[in-house]
Amino acid sequence: MKLLSYLTPEGYKSYGILQGEGIIDLRSRTDIDTPDLKSFIREKGVAAAEGYIRHETDYQLSDITFLPVIENPGKILCVGMNYQTKRTEFSITSDAPTIFIRFSDSQTAHLGDIVKPALSDQLDYEGELVIIIGKAGSNISEQDATKHIAGYSCYMDGSVRDWQHTWFTAGKNWSKTGGFGPWLVSCDEVPDPQKLQLKTWLNGEIVQQDSTANMVHSIRKIISYMSTFTQLSPGDVILTGSPGGVGRSRNPQVFLNIGDVIEVEIESVGRLTNYVVAASK
Amino acid sequence: MKLLSYLTPEGYKSYGILQGEGIIDLRSRTDIDTPDLKSFIREKGVAAAEGYIRHETDYQLSDITFLPVIENPGKILCVGMNYQTKRTEFSITSDAPTIFIRFSDSQTAHLGDIVKPALSDQLDYEGELVIIIGKAGSNISEQDATKHIAGYSCYMDGSVRDWQHTWFTAGKNWSKTGGFGPWLVSCDEVPDPQKLQLKTWLNGEIVQQDSTANMVHSIRKIISYMSTFTQLSPGDVILTGSPGGVGRSRNPQVFLNIGDVIEVEIESVGRLTNYVVAASK
Repeated sequence: MKLLSYLTPEGYKSYGILQGEGIIDLRSRTDIDTPDLKSFIREKGVAAAEGYIRHETDYQLSDITFLPVIENPGKILCVGMNYQTKRTEFSITSDAPTIFIRFSDSQTAHLGDIVKPALSDQLDYEGELVIIIGKAGSNISEQDATKHIAGYSCYMDGSVRDWQHTWFTAGKNWSKTGGFGPWLVSCDEVPDPQKLQLKTWLNGEIVQQDSTANMVHSIRKIISYMSTFTQLSPGDVILTGSPGGVGRSRNPQVFLNIGDVIEVEIESVGRLTNYVVAASK
Repeated sequence: MKLLSYLTPEGYKSYGILQGEGIIDLRSRTDIDTPDLKSFIREKGVAAAEGYIRHETDYQLSDITFLPVIENPGKILCVGMNYQTKRTEFSITSDAPTIFIRFSDSQTAHLGDIVKPALSDQLDYEGELVIIIGKAGSNISEQDATKHIAGYSCYMDGSVRDWQHTWFTAGKNWSKTGGFGPWLVSCDEVPDPQKLQLKTWLNGEIVQQDSTANMVHSIRKIISYMSTFTQLSPGDVILTGSPGGVGRSRNPQVFLNIGDVIEVEIESVGRLTNYVVAASK
């Protein structure tokens, strides 16, 4: 099952189930206390959407405007340097997971704009698998970790390299640098999230290609580790890191320019497309 | 003027003006769309509280339970390594401001518990001046920066050193490790925020003592820098960094233990008191 957040053709925020090329709207069929996908996951759980899959579709996919899958997560936690190829490129030696935070307002949706900061020429791409948390927890064991996952999606963790430093914050929070979509794919459609091919495409050419099998810290480990120092809640989003092949590490270096099309495709999940535009003056 | 957030004696969340030892409750006197101090600042501005200062007090300070001054800031942005004494202790050489993020659920109130993580014996203290943002902005100039400040408060930026690394996240987000209070002091009572004595007391002994004059990056610079890569909004909280003298850098090292009393006192602002307790099993 695929769940997505969007603006209706009339311009209202909503969310629903993807059914072929159609959408079964869930907001209009559910309670006032589940106005968005985050609250639906929190109050009812992803599986509750299955009760609606035989309903008629309300919109065509081509009629809606995508929103970030979760528009306003309580927490966006990111693992940096989580593929060996990337660690080699950045000369990382620490064993501890590298964790940084994005704010919600740094996100942008599928088919939306990625904004190149006016103050930097080092906006870089990072294709990543993301986890959307379905069930709250602290001190989650690795064994129980997958029970806390609502589903998966793609993320383009746009990174302003000359502002990144070793603390990441200033390089990862520029407005509309984090592409998130197209949709949440429920766990039953992703039998093993550590066996997915991940590709990043820049203007139609593959620039990153790896398998999630090559994560240094597994998804189970990441959830367990993060939940040790902070509570996880439904709708929280976890970026699991990007493979090697980013632009900073190429010779010559390749950074995103206005007009570029950047895409992240993950097997069984989907293909996220974003367009690089200039910051408004 | 001093504004504070609290639980009333009946257990309801509210906020008000400190008047001597009494409190003029503002929630009960204002609109339904200003249920907390953050929304009051956003919708009306701190100065609007002055219209109530001749009202009768509703509670005594001794009758309420403090909440973090802003319980749920949209963003908590922190500057690390912002006093030369601290930079020397941690061997920092980078010129760029060191920025990390705390989540709201890592906060605790004046007179509240600081929770020592069960998994670490390296919980350290950091006394800091904090800024509370009053007016939204992006790309704010240093010249205009102070116009965006609603007021000041004290913060005890509790830091789990063995989880901190160079990306900070895992060391700065444990539940109830960030003391925030006792209150917001409006700008008119702090004519020059770069000329304040700051002292941290551990069990009644001074362990940090410095002047905010010795910040490496000034408050104006910090606001301008942060607003370049992320939008600032009313109720956002900025920690401005801690002077030298933290426990990690002492010989022998001094970390917080259960039963300790840790206090941060800032001239013209107030004195924040917290008690170190064990994590619940």
